Amino acid sequence: MRPPIIATTADPALAAQLDQAINNKTKPLGSLGTLETLAKQLGLIQQTVAVTVEQPAILVFAGDHGVVAEGISAFPQDVTWQMVENFLADGAAINVFARQNGASLYVVDAGVNHDFGPRPGLLDRKLAHGTRNFAQEPAMTAQQCATAMEHGAALVADLPGNVVGFGEMGIGNTTAAAALMHKLSGIPVADCVGAGTGLSPDGVLRKQRVIEAAVAHHAGVSDPLDVLATFGGFEIAMMSGAMLKAAAMRKTLLIDGFIVTSALLAASRIAPAVLDYCVFAHCSDEAGHRRMLEQLGARPLLQLGMRLGEGTGAALALPLLHAAANFLNEMATFSSASVSEKSEVA
Amino acid sequence: MRPPIIATTADPALAAQLDQAINNKTKPLGSLGTLETLAKQLGLIQQTVAVTVEQPAILVFAGDHGVVAEGISAFPQDVTWQMVENFLADGAAINVFARQNGASLYVVDAGVNHDFGPRPGLLDRKLAHGTRNFAQEPAMTAQQCATAMEHGAALVADLPGNVVGFGEMGIGNTTAAAALMHKLSGIPVADCVGAGTGLSPDGVLRKQRVIEAAVAHHAGVSDPLDVLATFGGFEIAMMSGAMLKAAAMRKTLLIDGFIVTSALLAASRIAPAVLDYCVFAHCSDEAGHRRMLEQLGARPLLQLGMRLGEGTGAALALPLLHAAANFLNEMATFSSASVSEKSEVA
Repeated sequence: MRPPIIATTADPALAAQLDQAINNKTKPLGSLGTLETLAKQLGLIQQTVAVTVEQPAILVFAGDHGVVAEGISAFPQDVTWQMVENFLADGAAINVFARQNGASLYVVDAGVNHDFGPRPGLLDRKLAHGTRNFAQEPAMTAQQCATAMEHGAALVADLPGNVVGFGEMGIGNTTAAAALMHKLSGIPVADCVGAGTGLSPDGVLRKQRVIEAAVAHHAGVSDPLDVLATFGGFEIAMMSGAMLKAAAMRKTLLIDGFIVTSALLAASRIAPAVLDYCVFAHCSDEAGHRRMLEQLGARPLLQLGMRLGEGTGAALALPLLHAAANFLNEMATFSSASVSEKSEVA
Repeated sequence: MRPPIIATTADPALAAQLDQAINNKTKPLGSLGTLETLAKQLGLIQQTVAVTVEQPAILVFAGDHGVVAEGISAFPQDVTWQMVENFLADGAAINVFARQNGASLYVVDAGVNHDFGPRPGLLDRKLAHGTRNFAQEPAMTAQQCATAMEHGAALVADLPGNVVGFGEMGIGNTTAAAALMHKLSGIPVADCVGAGTGLSPDGVLRKQRVIEAAVAHHAGVSDPLDVLATFGGFEIAMMSGAMLKAAAMRKTLLIDGFIVTSALLAASRIAPAVLDYCVFAHCSDEAGHRRMLEQLGARPLLQLGMRLGEGTGAALALPLLHAAANFLNEMATFSSASVSEKSEVA
């Protein structure tokens, strides 16, 4: 896919207007902290002082990974399709949190190793029954990767609303994400791998060695799209494409955990301005996520020691997005409320 | 007031039941992090695995402080009553966040230096037109302090629901809170004072010296109730009383920022088990709050760089409380959803 054109959100005149609107609210200067930063970012994304959070959607992309053949996950591959069934039956954590916080949930089969048949509530964008094992060959062909990105973009183009949260499910996908992180950032593999769904220390070491060997095997790969195709997953590439499209449409992107951030890392290497549109929902407990967020200059809203994926962090951060929009829209100003301003001469 | 009897929430049998319920949910073990801790705490408070968050209330206590005569605040004292008017007119940050997150807001005049007259929506529990200047004499008499605590308890006794958030408004009350923190924890005054609503560094130093001199002046005071009467405020003592009553009624307490935590510190010196019932909403940017939370062994849910008070942190943390209850009540289990469990032998 040809990456869509993404403009930076920088706009000094609007930024000054937003600062003034925020600072006139009845509160000490800067006292809403991160919510003020967030309100300003929403304004710059939406090109207005009258920001909104409309019909937020959470897209959960599911895919399987050939690299599970290397024994890098604590759970069997069947859990991917079983969890998709759980999403469809409304029983997973993301169902609970999306419902609670008013987000519409969309479940996408990007390439699960299972035949679901036509199913209400499941968006079938299956590219194959899982990727190839990247320890031996590229996970995807260049064409598959491009098609995945196009599917992601098309899904976002059809969404109502101005906020898109991203989530994923795929046994083995922390291995793919760690490989992407290493290749796209240069951070040593040992600092990119973690326990995923619950590997033992020996399991983590094995996972690290699998990635190191695969990286050596595919030593020549360096272009971001080639890296994504070689080490990524269908759900990851679909997210990268969806993110680029969402930013091009000036939607706000709610970035979840380790795997979602790896998709964004790839997208940002293709179009850096995508980052202007990103709100980082939380810092996952998966080793490597904090470091990847630092690479992106990201400051996550929540630190709750979570490491579940599915978009759960994005769903939980949504009330803070509403809070940022609401204080900007609804709070009185010092003059409207006849509240005295600061008297101390600093 | 005679402090109510507060039982610890410890219950090993129920704790084991809660652990089992949490661990059987379709997610990797421990992967909901802090939300799991929170769900368990709610269960222990409510003595059930079927936890609820019912009709949450936020009480905002307003009071004035004689110590403002020492020039320790960046804003004039009139801002206390002006902000109470702003609360009543629905224009403050706490109005916005309480409404957004479904909390009922109660505004209490604990001792504001202003005659509001009878006003719908304002709970008149005024003890005086502000405290005395504790740089020269005790802020309250022992009787005033006891009456304030009784009022707080009575207000909580009348609330529906099982969650109470605490907030405050009072120009000068970070000075009172810092003095309480020092006296009740032994932490040096310099580590207890901060910029409040926005003091300059010189202003902070002046505030520190005012507190140090006052502490020297009242050198003999050490009993927690005497400390509260000498250095506290009407709104602070009312919160301490309200907290003790809420815990005695096995409600969940949502603790806001620096001043609210100072009221809790006093309450916990009277009845340590009150802490079992506390959810710490956020870590304020006010210098000293982090240290005070450490003293209490508290791990706050949010770190958003806020320092506004009013109960804003408590209101913003409420969706996380709902999330903890909801995942425990609504998520499928591995067996109900037919999802395979972990296969790796760790």
